Amino acid sequence: MQVNSELQQLNGNYLFTEIVRRTQAYQAQHPEAKVLRLGVGDVTRPLPLTIIDAMHRAVEEMAHAKTFRGYGPEAGYGWLKQCIIEHDYRPRGVELTPEEVFISDGAGSDLGNLSELFDRANSVAILDPAYPAYVDTSRMAGRKIQYLPCVAENGFVPELPKEQADIIYLCYPNNPTGAVLTREQLRLWVEYARSHHSIIIFDAAYESFIEEKDIPHTIYEIEGAKEVAIEVCSYSKSAGFTAVRCGWTVVPKQTGLQAMWMRRQCTKFNGTSYIAQRAAEATYTPAGKAGLQANLTHYKNTAKLLLKGLSTMGYEVYGGKNAPYIWCRVPKGYDSWSFFDHLLERCQVVCTPGVGFGPAGEGFVRFSAFSNREDVEEALKRMEHIK
Amino acid sequence: MQVNSELQQLNGNYLFTEIVRRTQAYQAQHPEAKVLRLGVGDVTRPLPLTIIDAMHRAVEEMAHAKTFRGYGPEAGYGWLKQCIIEHDYRPRGVELTPEEVFISDGAGSDLGNLSELFDRANSVAILDPAYPAYVDTSRMAGRKIQYLPCVAENGFVPELPKEQADIIYLCYPNNPTGAVLTREQLRLWVEYARSHHSIIIFDAAYESFIEEKDIPHTIYEIEGAKEVAIEVCSYSKSAGFTAVRCGWTVVPKQTGLQAMWMRRQCTKFNGTSYIAQRAAEATYTPAGKAGLQANLTHYKNTAKLLLKGLSTMGYEVYGGKNAPYIWCRVPKGYDSWSFFDHLLERCQVVCTPGVGFGPAGEGFVRFSAFSNREDVEEALKRMEHIK
Repeated sequence: MQVNSELQQLNGNYLFTEIVRRTQAYQAQHPEAKVLRLGVGDVTRPLPLTIIDAMHRAVEEMAHAKTFRGYGPEAGYGWLKQCIIEHDYRPRGVELTPEEVFISDGAGSDLGNLSELFDRANSVAILDPAYPAYVDTSRMAGRKIQYLPCVAENGFVPELPKEQADIIYLCYPNNPTGAVLTREQLRLWVEYARSHHSIIIFDAAYESFIEEKDIPHTIYEIEGAKEVAIEVCSYSKSAGFTAVRCGWTVVPKQTGLQAMWMRRQCTKFNGTSYIAQRAAEATYTPAGKAGLQANLTHYKNTAKLLLKGLSTMGYEVYGGKNAPYIWCRVPKGYDSWSFFDHLLERCQVVCTPGVGFGPAGEGFVRFSAFSNREDVEEALKRMEHIK
Repeated sequence: MQVNSELQQLNGNYLFTEIVRRTQAYQAQHPEAKVLRLGVGDVTRPLPLTIIDAMHRAVEEMAHAKTFRGYGPEAGYGWLKQCIIEHDYRPRGVELTPEEVFISDGAGSDLGNLSELFDRANSVAILDPAYPAYVDTSRMAGRKIQYLPCVAENGFVPELPKEQADIIYLCYPNNPTGAVLTREQLRLWVEYARSHHSIIIFDAAYESFIEEKDIPHTIYEIEGAKEVAIEVCSYSKSAGFTAVRCGWTVVPKQTGLQAMWMRRQCTKFNGTSYIAQRAAEATYTPAGKAGLQANLTHYKNTAKLLLKGLSTMGYEVYGGKNAPYIWCRVPKGYDSWSFFDHLLERCQVVCTPGVGFGPAGEGFVRFSAFSNREDVEEALKRMEHIK
């Protein structure tokens, strides 16, 4: 047996694992310290009652022979697909069929597994910096990667690829920079993909943080996108489902990939937890929507607080407006990891080193707004103290 | 962009999808018919109260800021790993570390994704007949497949591979034949793998149906297996979790693959639903164990009833003793699919065509014991009528 050498050659330290390791090491040496975690993009607000109730009902169904359920459809229940079609796409002028919507246990799995749809010889274009899984997944598949630098000079909006890009990963609102694309800017990418026979994998996990008007919520708002784009979405950030686990992926028939993805999922995935699907369904009720809006408003206010606080202290900051992330340039004399260590040791504040998202992220750290107000206020106070 | 041609070339009709299609077509034409489903291996008994309670508690935790949880560890919570180590392995003389146990959303995902650990040039040996995902997954990876016929003449225990097999998929108790391996028989496979530098992927999903003494419950009961075997298990059949979604995979350090699998999971999987993990934990409580035992006894009795009923009618039947499946030779003049259609049309009974599991399954159908007693009794009555 020969191992997959591409997988074997990957660096063992996954970014977030390394952050956890350093934080735990610090906490072990300073058991009394109150460490404030503004690093990993994980939600903290409890779920609205109507979603809790929906899960209780689903659990209760499993207790009685008449309502007990076994395997659901591999690609998800029709009632949840219908909610997504009617609430997430139709209001934006996008029509989808249930066969084009695939329910999953979250965007993480889909973003990784979609790679299987393509020949390994395909070239990949990835934003730099970017969510590490795009790069790691492409490396595991042995693909040639072209990095598209997103820097302050281009407003974190990269130029179109210089070399042929067969597969393009885009994430907007962006993790980690918090940048967004206008309709016109996204149109350029759809046009590139159409003229270069590329496929765009569009990660829309932070869509619910968009506040400004001209920012598309789905790539299918752009004409012609259905032929060249797969869109990956999740309830993790919009509804606080990082522990519940539910998301979805749209593979339009026009891509020619819908049947292949169905075949892949039917073979290697046995469906999403029924309880998670009922929870997702409840996010579309009026009470569910109101509850989630309240949580989103909280996170958006936290983002504004962070943005203002850091900016007032003189830090050069980006994002935080249509996204839950603030991208912050580190002070002179530091790089991403040394500033991470500095904040951890001097302020007991955990951020995310920008270089962990790619070489162009060097010299930045990411702050996450998925925290409670008190922690953010306390973190800002401590940081002011060391300025 | 070029598609993955191996995936594209796969036959579009996944076995169970085709069964559903034919059954729905029949039901649409005969809306009054009471169709009895003895086909797909899906559980039907409600979950024990103690597991329901554990899920309600986990759901309730998500409603309050103090107990709310976000992302869990990608490979699962330590408390669940500890339960598995202490209850599923230690009593059988097998010691594992938490790092070797990976919690997942079910065996289906792991059996598919484990394929990524290996170089695509590796050859594969697969039982014929077998659960279709082994073949489909290997074909998607472009691997050369060697089939190992399991027929009545060899007691459905195949001979060792004639050509080099780098990856070997074994499933015991077997789906679909219901065959089991004795300790001595399994030892031969471990020895083969050790001397041929092969890796065994051991699917133990039906372990809880073993009743006879000399049948190993885990491949690690065999000396030296830790160096050459990955074991995939699931709560789906033992605990009725096909809708809840939870399973686990053991990748011993001695295989040299543990760190690679961790890297794969951290990159392409964001962890198993917290609620599902708490449900799994509850299966190890005394009340949980008793409740599951009651369900297992029900299914085992159903298996015995089917075995006796079919045998009395003169069918040549196998399995059903340490497994929930009965493997039944079709009468002369039929093949697997024509007998499937015959039973559906004349008795409104759904079975699974044996040929769907591989060419050596032609001439057989599989009956599943995951049904309620009344349905099985009624199905047997109807079948007697057409003899």
